[in-house]
Parts: sequence; C-alpha cells; structure tokens
Amino acid sequence: MSSTPSTTDSATTPPFADSPLSVNAAVRPLLQRLLDQADELRVQVGQDASGVRIVDAGIAAPGSVAAGVLVGEICMGGLGRVQLAAQGYGDASSGWPTWLEVSSSQPVLACLASQYAGWSLSASKEEAGGKKFFSLGSGPARALAGKEELFKELGYRDPIAAAERSGVLVLEVDRAPPPVVVEKVLRDCGLRPEQLTLILTPTRSLAGTTQVVARVLEVALHKAHELHFPLEHIVDGVASAPLPSPGADGLDAMGRTNDAILYGGRVQLTVRGGDDAARLLAKELPSLNSRDYGRGFADIFKAAEYDFYKIDGALFAPAEVWVSSLESGKTWHAGRLNLDLLRGQWLDAA
Amino acid sequence: MSSTPSTTDSATTPPFADSPLSVNAAVRPLLQRLLDQADELRVQVGQDASGVRIVDAGIAAPGSVAAGVLVGEICMGGLGRVQLAAQGYGDASSGWPTWLEVSSSQPVLACLASQYAGWSLSASKEEAGGKKFFSLGSGPARALAGKEELFKELGYRDPIAAAERSGVLVLEVDRAPPPVVVEKVLRDCGLRPEQLTLILTPTRSLAGTTQVVARVLEVALHKAHELHFPLEHIVDGVASAPLPSPGADGLDAMGRTNDAILYGGRVQLTVRGGDDAARLLAKELPSLNSRDYGRGFADIFKAAEYDFYKIDGALFAPAEVWVSSLESGKTWHAGRLNLDLLRGQWLDAA
Amino acid sequence: MSSTPSTTDSATTPPFADSPLSVNAAVRPLLQRLLDQADELRVQVGQDASGVRIVDAGIAAPGSVAAGVLVGEICMGGLGRVQLAAQGYGDASSGWPTWLEVSSSQPVLACLASQYAGWSLSASKEEAGGKKFFSLGSGPARALAGKEELFKELGYRDPIAAAERSGVLVLEVDRAPPPVVVEKVLRDCGLRPEQLTLILTPTRSLAGTTQVVARVLEVALHKAHELHFPLEHIVDGVASAPLPSPGADGLDAMGRTNDAILYGGRVQLTVRGGDDAARLLAKELPSLNSRDYGRGFADIFKAAEYDFYKIDGALFAPAEVWVSSLESGKTWHAGRLNLDLLRGQWLDAA
Repeated sequence: MSSTPSTTDSATTPPFADSPLSVNAAVRPLLQRLLDQADELRVQVGQDASGVRIVDAGIAAPGSVAAGVLVGEICMGGLGRVQLAAQGYGDASSGWPTWLEVSSSQPVLACLASQYAGWSLSASKEEAGGKKFFSLGSGPARALAGKEELFKELGYRDPIAAAERSGVLVLEVDRAPPPVVVEKVLRDCGLRPEQLTLILTPTRSLAGTTQVVARVLEVALHKAHELHFPLEHIVDGVASAPLPSPGADGLDAMGRTNDAILYGGRVQLTVRGGDDAARLLAKELPSLNSRDYGRGFADIFKAAEYDFYKIDGALFAPAEVWVSSLESGKTWHAGRLNLDLLRGQWLDAA
Repeated sequence: MSSTPSTTDSATTPPFADSPLSVNAAVRPLLQRLLDQADELRVQVGQDASGVRIVDAGIAAPGSVAAGVLVGEICMGGLGRVQLAAQGYGDASSGWPTWLEVSSSQPVLACLASQYAGWSLSASKEEAGGKKFFSLGSGPARALAGKEELFKELGYRDPIAAAERSGVLVLEVDRAPPPVVVEKVLRDCGLRPEQLTLILTPTRSLAGTTQVVARVLEVALHKAHELHFPLEHIVDGVASAPLPSPGADGLDAMGRTNDAILYGGRVQLTVRGGDDAARLLAKELPSLNSRDYGRGFADIFKAAEYDFYKIDGALFAPAEVWVSSLESGKTWHAGRLNLDLLRGQWLDAA
Repeated sequence: MSSTPSTTDSATTPPFADSPLSVNAAVRPLLQRLLDQADELRVQVGQDASGVRIVDAGIAAPGSVAAGVLVGEICMGGLGRVQLAAQGYGDASSGWPTWLEVSSSQPVLACLASQYAGWSLSASKEEAGGKKFFSLGSGPARALAGKEELFKELGYRDPIAAAERSGVLVLEVDRAPPPVVVEKVLRDCGLRPEQLTLILTPTRSLAGTTQVVARVLEVALHKAHELHFPLEHIVDGVASAPLPSPGADGLDAMGRTNDAILYGGRVQLTVRGGDDAARLLAKELPSLNSRDYGRGFADIFKAAEYDFYKIDGALFAPAEVWVSSLESGKTWHAGRLNLDLLRGQWLDAA
C-alpha cells in the first residue's frame, strides 16, 4: 500500500495528540464493577506489599467468562463494547455455539492505544525471584506510560486529570509480576501504588481466553497498521469471533485464541481516505493472505520452533473482513470464516 | 382491512389518553449519556443564541455508529431498545456483517408517538437566511407539541411534570434550523430555550444512517396504521435490519436506509384482536406487496421524479413480517429478506 | 453415570456452603427497575393486606416481553443475564424471529439455588377461599427458606445481611396466593411482610412465557443433576431458545414453553471433572435421549393423562448441548435443534 501516505510520514501533528478522551478515567466504572462483583465473577482482589491492587482473574482464583468479557472492555479503555452472543453462527453440524461481539466508535484509541498488548515488561531471573518474568502489558495504563513507538505515531497520551489519576494494566501471566516490574510500571505511568490496578489473566483461564478473543477488532487494527493504512482514517469497527474453551496448556490455549480470530474472526471497518485504499485494505487484511494460513496456530508455532518472528506477520488478522468507505458508502469484503478448521481443533467426537 | 374497526371510528376515549408514561422524562438518562460521552461518540454539544442545546451528530462533528444507536433509543422516547449486532445474518457469500436489533414493549408510544418523523417544520427562504429549510422532526418532543393528526388518534400527550419539563427533538438535517423554526418548536412544545435539546443527524452521516435504520420497527407500525389496524392492539415488537455504510450523497444515503428496511427489515409484532386481523396484517404488511418492490429505493425515487407522493405507500414496510396473536398464540409470517438486492446495492467487487 | 461420584456421596462440606453471594441482595437493582418501570413494562405493583408487595405481571395487568426478560434475570438471582435477540436463527422459510439468550458464570446458584421452580406451595380449598391453590415457587427467596432437598446438597443458604434482609419469589399463577401461603413464605424465609415481593406471572402471559423460556440453561442444569453430574463441576453456561407467543390456554402455553426448550434450546456448559464425564454428559443431556422425544409437549402431556410423573424425565432437557472440559479444553456436542417441529406447532399458514 505504498501509494497511501502513512501517518508518520506527515509533518503535521500526530492524529490523536489533542484527544480529550481519558482511557483510564473511562474504565473506572468498569473496574468498579469488577471489584464489586468479584465473588460472582470468581476473581480475587488483593494488594501487593507496596499497595498496588492485584486482581487475580485466573491464577489462584478460577475466574469466569463474564470476568473475561468485563476485562475485555477494560482493555479497550472503556471505549468499546464486548458482549457474549449465545446465538451462534451456524448449527450443530457446522457452527459454534458461543461468540463474542466487539464494537467501538473509537477503534484506534480503544484497540491500539489501550487494548493492544504492546508494553514489554520483563525481569531477569535474579530480579524476579528465581524465574525470568516476561509479559506484554495491555490496557489503558499503557497510555499513561506511552513507552511504545506506537504512541509517538498516535500522538496520544492519556490526559487524565491529576486529581483522578489512576491506571489499569492487564497482564496475560500465570504469576504476579515481581516488584521490579511493578515499580517500573508505577514509575513509567507516574502513579502511586494505590492508584494502580493490575489484572492478571492467564491464557489458560476462562477470563484469559475470553479477553484475548475479545481482541478480534484490535487484531484487524494492528494488521491495518502493518499495512501502513493511516490509522486516523479508521472511524468505526464491529467484529465477532467464536469463543473456544481454554486450551489444555499454555501452547494450546494460545493456539486456540489465535485460531478463534485467524479462522473465526469477522470484522467490519468504516474508513475514510477513498475507495482505492479501502478496497486494498479489504483485500490485504484477511489472514488467508498469509503463507502460513490453513493450519492451527499451535502447529504453526511449533513448526516455527516457538519463534514468533519466524511466523509470517500477515497471518495475524481476522478471517473475514469488510471495509466500508465513509465517502462513497461502498463496501468491499474478502476472506471467509473457516469453522471447519476450528471444529477440527476444538471438537471431539461425542 | 375494512372489517376491522379502526381506533378513530370508535366513540370511546382514544387508547393512549391515560398513559402515565412520559417519553421526554424517559429519555433523560439517555440524553445525559449522549452529553457525557460526546467526545467518545464524536458529537459536538453547543447552544444556539437563544440558549437551546444543539447536539451536532454529523454536520461539523463526525458522529459515529454508537451515537446513532443512542439517538435511536432517544428517538424511541426511552421506551425501546436499539442494539448493534455483530453476528450478521448469513455469511461472506450471502449475508451482511452488521445489523441493528430493535425491540419495544410499548411499540405504539415508542415508535409512533415519539420516533416517527412526522412533525413538519419549515421556513421560507427569507425566514431561513437565504435557503429554504425543511425537516420532519422526530423524537419525544413531538409528544409535547402534539401538532399532528396522529396524536388525536392516540390521545397521547406527554404528561411530563412541570418541574421537570424538557424536550428532545431529532432533525435529519445538514444544517441547524433557523431561529424561526426553533421558536416554533419552543412555542408548540411549551418549553423555555434551556429546556430543549435539538439533535442534528444528516442521513449522510454514520449516526444519521444508524438512527434511520433503527426505525425498522416504526416502519412496521406506520404501515399497520396505514392498513387501519387498530394501533392499541399492537402490544409488543421485535425487529432487525442490516446497517449499511452511509451513502455518497443525500439521495444515495436515503436510498440505503430505506433499502435496509424494505429489503432487510424483519419484524415480529404481537397483537390483540383475533386471528383474522392478525393473519391479514401479516399478509398485507411486507414491502413485497408494493408494485414498486424489487428495485433500490434511490432508483424508485428517481423514477418517481423525486416526488414521494408518486411512490406506492405500500412499499414503506419491512421485508419480512411475523405477526403473533396474543389470544390464540398463533403466528403468521409473510415476506422475506432480499439480501441479494442489498448486496447488489452496497457491495463492490474486491 | 454411575461411575461419577455425586456431590451428596461425599463426606466433605457441601460445595456452596461458603458462598458469600446473596441472590436476594443481587436482585435488588433489578427489582427496583421492575418497580420504577412498571408502567412501561405494563405490570402492576400493589400490596396485599399484610403489606407484602405483589407485582402482577400478567393477571389483571397485561405484562410484556420486556417484563419477562427482567423477571427472568430476577429469577436467576441477579447472577445471570437474559437478553432478547432479534436476529433469529434461520430465515423465513426455516427459522424463528425472536430468541432469548441466557448466560451465567454462576450457573448452579443462578439456576438451581434461585431460578428452579422447586418450592412447592399449596393450600387446600378451605384455606384458599374455595379453590385449591398450588404453585411451584421460583427465584431467590427459595434460598432464604431452603426447604428443598436440593439446598442440602448445595449447602447454600442466602447469607444476606440482617440489615438488608429482603426476598423475591416468582409464582407462575393466575391468581394471588391465599394468605396462608404468603404467611408460610414469610415464616420460612424469616421475612417481615414489607421485606417480601411476590411476582405473579401466568404462563399464558407475555411475561410468563418469556420468563419460562429463560429457564433454558436451568433445564440443562437440572438434567445434569438428574444424571448425577456433580453440580460444583459446572462452572459456566451459555444458552439460547426461541421465544414463542403465549399459548391459547394453560395447557397450550405450558406446551409451547416446554417445546421452546426441548426442541429449540441450545446450551453450552463448561465443566471440570475430566473428559469422560464431560463427554458422557454431552451425550446423555439432550432431549432426544428421551423415549417421549418427537411430539409437542402438550400432546405428550395429554397422552400421559395430565400426569407429569408418567412423562419420561429425560425429556426435560435442551435440544442441543455442547459440553466443554475446563481441563483439556475439548468440547463434545450432541442433539440438534428441531425448528421444523416448533414451526409446525407455532405457525399458521398466511
């Protein structure tokens, strides 16, 4: 898509520099609900030694699908909606019973400035009490820290008022982060311990699997960004994906959540910028453009010797894409759901 | 349906004369949400010189699908529910990805006393600063003014308490109404400027297209009224319609929103009054009863030389209708979705 | 499923003995909504002579589908979600337009400790003012009284704080219960009259039919219990069922609501306890395992000479079942929707 000038090429103010929206302020009612309904959602609320609030949504606490839906909305910085759909696409012989629906009228801020798991947080064996720690932080606190390249492009930094300064970070981990990581998060976000909430959701858990599949719209935004589509041209997004049961182990769980999006994700984006760019985006976006398309993600990952960088980046995309031009009103679609592949991975003969 | 005595034939009190429901009071929390989330919804809140609140949902402000969903609920006087459904009917090869779902257990008040765009508001070239102004006002403020014939039949007037008197009117326009129109609205509604909110949603905008498609249930109620079905016999309604991208210009936008309902609208009504009337209503209601059925609405309108009155009124109806009798429990259905026609209008080859 | 040790065989503490969740506290906001929106929902709120609040949702008051959805959530003790889905499964030629979606991440407490209609309440002809009274009470107040065997197994009793003690009971009746029954409910629940709300929903009414179909997940839980599957192993549930129009009389209405679940209910359960138990549950759960499967429920009931105990208990189950193992992530499914049968029962030729 070389003909489309990308945001970063432009000499003008980055597109979201003046946004008055605070993702961390917007998630406060959602976080409050998570805390108030902790028992119902089967999550556990505690504190670390420094006073940071820790919500365990799937380590010692069992967590739940409902917790995952709520964490999904928290990840989107309160600017998106995640909903369980019990009326599955297809029937017993060809479909899947439970789906997630995701939508946002602020897709770039919701998905990329907040939900995207882009903040690399690590600690050495020594720092982390004997076992190396690594996690990609997601959720609204990323927009307080703004440590990633992406934030320069967006020009966005959470403009939350000093008086209500608070942050929420979601970590897809199976243990609490070591103090050195928590301290880094506090420092980079400019938060005192009592202002920070960490939500821990192992991929293997119900909440973890749910909140990852809720990234179906974000995956489309991320791929659009990879394709150099100008992010500020994406004005609305609606998506769905089937919700699998959590996998048996970390690899299986990661495989399933990826497969749900790569083979079961459907996304509609409304964009500005003209028909040619919109048509090209529709054509290039779906996962089937990847040379790795067609096998379960866990297999692909194994074949890549567990090295993400050997996997074709084009694979990380929804299965079916619809792109609508805001100017002409035309819509282009490409790709298609591949539920047969998902059923092959997820179902066992009864 | 001459055998069915219509409401207006009856000598008794009109059916909604005693309703304690205030549509303008019921929309207050929804309006508050629209104001509180203005940035997220990409609408702009201002005031005119007289102090009337103006919400621009698609003129200078871009607006959004989410704004349109909320405006749809405001139009229904807080007595209906509008919801985005990401799990589209059909698949990539035959369906459409994004739909609206609408329901109400007060369908007559929600749709006809509030949502129906029935209040004719106009100003001459001279009055309107050089360019004639015309709009059909919709939303709960109509029920304060009660200027339309329909309100006599319903016997309904918003019984809002004097202390909380306020009104919301939605105008499908691409410029603010001239002072003469605003003054008329205030006068007819008995409101002071600071008690009135005008929401402006051009059909061409995301919010405008969305809130018009959200009229799918209202269109069924209106057609039922045209067929002289007694309105007070309609006790519950559920509907859906596909959400197109806004059209390229006013004509295209109007065409698409009409097509979404005429060819993609599905409605279930629950009615009293016996099997014969219910069966007949199901049979007569769907758009395919019209001699104009089968082409895109923009084409039909052009062929009618842009004169609404030359178009067969029977066309303005949902594509597929289910009518259930409250007494016998029986259901009749007629019509069918015509997604092929919609895809022909809305999709371009990728 | 004799190889699976059932909860009651175990010598340990019953599984829900320590639950801090109060179903009666959790329904308070839902009940408040029912009261606040009484006019919109077409229910009538009154008091009996002793001061107990009576909500008539379909006797003298007409009620509505929206009331039924809310009563459905109240029945689930505030721990489940019931939602209208207008995007029906299937099309005009094979489907049904309006469905309910139900989900819970506390399925055992929501469905069995609260929603299940298990509290037998009766009064003799003499006690009941000339006509015998019988009803099976459902909803959260059951968990205050704990009169049923089931509560021993669960070990659950609503731990509501004394200061906010209150209870809601739902009765599927067409007249108010006689004083002797109300007094029994108050006594067994430990409530003063002003602390109790009774919601009356005849099956024949819109709200009644809706709240019964909203039991689709509960029916799956109940059948799992009958199959001796350990209840505490069921950790999440998602379900849907088509919503019929209320039947012409009590028998027809009962037939339709049962048929909606037996032939149109789809449930996904997430369970612990290993693959063998999960696979067996999937296989044994669906209604088609019953010898009585294949005819409308009203016919079956007539053939059984109106004696429930002559009907095969295995019939009371959803049509299509998906069971997912939390440990292995595998899913098994069995059964299938039978919409042809439902359309045969519910539709008339237009």
